[in-house]
Amino acid sequence: MIKEEVIKEIRKVVGDENVLVSKEDRLCYGYDSTPVAYLPDLVVRPSSTEEIRTIVELANRHLFPIIPRGAGTGLSGGSLPVEGGVVIDLTRMDRILEIDEENLIAVVEPGVVTYHLQQEVERRGLFYPPDPASLKTSTIGGNVAECAGGPRAFKYGVTRDYVLGLEVVTPTGQVIETGGKTVKSVTGYDLTRLYTGSEGTLGIITKIYLRLIPLPEAKKTLMAVYGKLDDAARSVTLIIKEGIIPVTLEIMDDRTIQCVENYRHLGLPLDAEAILIIEVDGPQVLIEEQAGRVAALCRDNGAREVKVAETEEEREQIWASRRAVSAAVVQIKPTKISEDISVPRSAIPEMVRRLKEIASRYRLDLVIFGHAGDGNLHPNILCDKNDPDEMERVEKAIGELFRAAVELGGTLSGEHGIGTMKAPYLKLETGEAGYQVMQSIKSALDPNNILNPGKIFRSDI
Amino acid sequence: MIKEEVIKEIRKVVGDENVLVSKEDRLCYGYDSTPVAYLPDLVVRPSSTEEIRTIVELANRHLFPIIPRGAGTGLSGGSLPVEGGVVIDLTRMDRILEIDEENLIAVVEPGVVTYHLQQEVERRGLFYPPDPASLKTSTIGGNVAECAGGPRAFKYGVTRDYVLGLEVVTPTGQVIETGGKTVKSVTGYDLTRLYTGSEGTLGIITKIYLRLIPLPEAKKTLMAVYGKLDDAARSVTLIIKEGIIPVTLEIMDDRTIQCVENYRHLGLPLDAEAILIIEVDGPQVLIEEQAGRVAALCRDNGAREVKVAETEEEREQIWASRRAVSAAVVQIKPTKISEDISVPRSAIPEMVRRLKEIASRYRLDLVIFGHAGDGNLHPNILCDKNDPDEMERVEKAIGELFRAAVELGGTLSGEHGIGTMKAPYLKLETGEAGYQVMQSIKSALDPNNILNPGKIFRSDI
Repeated sequence: MIKEEVIKEIRKVVGDENVLVSKEDRLCYGYDSTPVAYLPDLVVRPSSTEEIRTIVELANRHLFPIIPRGAGTGLSGGSLPVEGGVVIDLTRMDRILEIDEENLIAVVEPGVVTYHLQQEVERRGLFYPPDPASLKTSTIGGNVAECAGGPRAFKYGVTRDYVLGLEVVTPTGQVIETGGKTVKSVTGYDLTRLYTGSEGTLGIITKIYLRLIPLPEAKKTLMAVYGKLDDAARSVTLIIKEGIIPVTLEIMDDRTIQCVENYRHLGLPLDAEAILIIEVDGPQVLIEEQAGRVAALCRDNGAREVKVAETEEEREQIWASRRAVSAAVVQIKPTKISEDISVPRSAIPEMVRRLKEIASRYRLDLVIFGHAGDGNLHPNILCDKNDPDEMERVEKAIGELFRAAVELGGTLSGEHGIGTMKAPYLKLETGEAGYQVMQSIKSALDPNNILNPGKIFRSDI
Repeated sequence: MIKEEVIKEIRKVVGDENVLVSKEDRLCYGYDSTPVAYLPDLVVRPSSTEEIRTIVELANRHLFPIIPRGAGTGLSGGSLPVEGGVVIDLTRMDRILEIDEENLIAVVEPGVVTYHLQQEVERRGLFYPPDPASLKTSTIGGNVAECAGGPRAFKYGVTRDYVLGLEVVTPTGQVIETGGKTVKSVTGYDLTRLYTGSEGTLGIITKIYLRLIPLPEAKKTLMAVYGKLDDAARSVTLIIKEGIIPVTLEIMDDRTIQCVENYRHLGLPLDAEAILIIEVDGPQVLIEEQAGRVAALCRDNGAREVKVAETEEEREQIWASRRAVSAAVVQIKPTKISEDISVPRSAIPEMVRRLKEIASRYRLDLVIFGHAGDGNLHPNILCDKNDPDEMERVEKAIGELFRAAVELGGTLSGEHGIGTMKAPYLKLETGEAGYQVMQSIKSALDPNNILNPGKIFRSDI
């Protein structure tokens, strides 16, 4: 509980209208895109770095937790107030401060919606590639805090690859700037990348310098349907060996295909083991040739059907099947546990086999889709959170799937973060010593454990 | 001084032949590519992670400094034993452990020479782009520790953009693994990027996972000669606005051109204010067209001469002028102080003007060249380290040039690191609070200050 006198001080800082105390209001800031929710003690909606700095100072004086929050679309629990405290809603700080066309840099506040920024830069012939599925609602600040990925990461990299500099309010209430408008910088430790993906535990990000690139001239989309999963996986490897780096190399497994087809009736073959959706972009002259080579290569390697979109409408149709996945799978069961393992690309077939075996052993409904180019798979377990027996089996299956990923040289999280959902498993990957290094950094920078407590560091493996 | 009994223990760990105690031997490990040198107490040449771990344990027990060292080609003093101690020479750990063509990953020990790795991967049609000028002698371990850059960084990024994972011996003598064979990973803090560029102060890197990319099909090189520096700078901006991202966009100023021409007689015009060397790479069909557009654009924007290399011989000739720079400038004066500031690309003309003004005020001989695409300039002050009056003026000029870079939104170091050379100026850029954050991390991870003491943290601004 936050004391009344502290709330009074906070009101003075941000104004009455930006402090939410009613239970109804607070409920709206206690959830994210995971199936759990918590009630914060208070919600504060600051409009400036200085307001945030003052609140962090108050937090250190009165020892209450602060939970930074963007749009609450996270999939690992990063913005959940698991120990109560004050949620800092950053969506009022939503200005694009500058789009510097000469230096190809955007300077933004954390509350800018990612899609909004993308529209603004594309209007100028520029491109900000990271495209998490949530991009139409999620904020850049949240994307940076979680180091969000997306389908285009295969060619263009993830959020971290575009963050050049940050303004950060530290856990002890100081304001620092890291990096800035230079592409190259090796001045001291790489704090920019340390804060990126630190899930709100090391600082509150209040300004972001993003690298932009020229907008590619054109793109071309293909869909390849496979009778055998292994053939799809081999095609992925061979495309890359050919020296072609597609923007996206999405994969959907048999169960995903069935769910989508039953839901949307797009004409997907119900007996296919895998579908690849491949998009190439670049200069017009190049992509025509590349799309042709990709199509031929897929056909030569077991694809029983390859569609090349010749019009924007055909392109939309191909993507429609991928976009329908989330809506389709929740038709099966009310709860969707969305995982996010990543393995070396060559291990995809083995990982898919292991996932299916685990699901079958625990009698769970599982769909697998994801970004095959990166080896980043999203196994989604379809279940009912009100069925305790099933949820117990889900828990066990999740433990096993993480173990399988790490055994195959992979990682617990490709792009969603650790948050609360994967915290119990962190040491599986980091080991005790790696965990200690991370925890030492947290304790050194946040001695009072103010920022986002209960995240990342709850490993019980 | 290291006690005799400790040396005995170290001999047991690595074998007598890998412990160097004579002054002659130790002298060989006390310098790098900066103009200063120190004498280490001992040089140890381990061959395994376990040997290194044991030595770090001994260092914590007996409290002696450890200085990790690659090939000693650094330009900021990162491998200098400024407080004595034990130099750990990593060049015996020089195995390429794996080139995984399917996953496009190389796994190497730190002592592998960068050029050697590049040859091995290029033989397989793959590409490891980072190309610091020292690449024929410098090691990957040193490149990672300093986050080395190079001319190709404009298109391909710097070392950090290729490091996927590390094995590290921590300052307290534990072995951890970060990242690995997955391109995407957001499991806890980004220790991979924290260690990359940490200049041997946070850990000793013992294994490196590097991302590879397909080798570009072809390249094309141009040289454009400008009567006016501003025209050269404007051309750089316009090339990028056209959506062309050359591999390299090198710039040489008038004084550099004169030094090179006087030394090598390559036919460079002595009255030009700037030369750009531009290289594009990619599919053959694309680069012919891009090279044509770049040439036209340079001509339209003030270039009085544009050469497009049509043969490998002509390409070599263009690069010869750039490669001659280092040898040419030391003909003028015996000592070369090589700086490494980086500014937003659009600030290059203003930065060059300020640099010339500073040099003229302190009566110093200055050449400026560097990577214009990145805004990364290497002002080299030509002087004589045995002339104390001149060296005092050099010191003052360096302070001013760092201030100018930071004022223009730039950074002290684009690719050389802070080491000892720029340590006095660190706070200029980080501010007191940013400096404290970095120092907290150092103290938390290296409580006994074992690893590379006297580096980075000596700011007296």
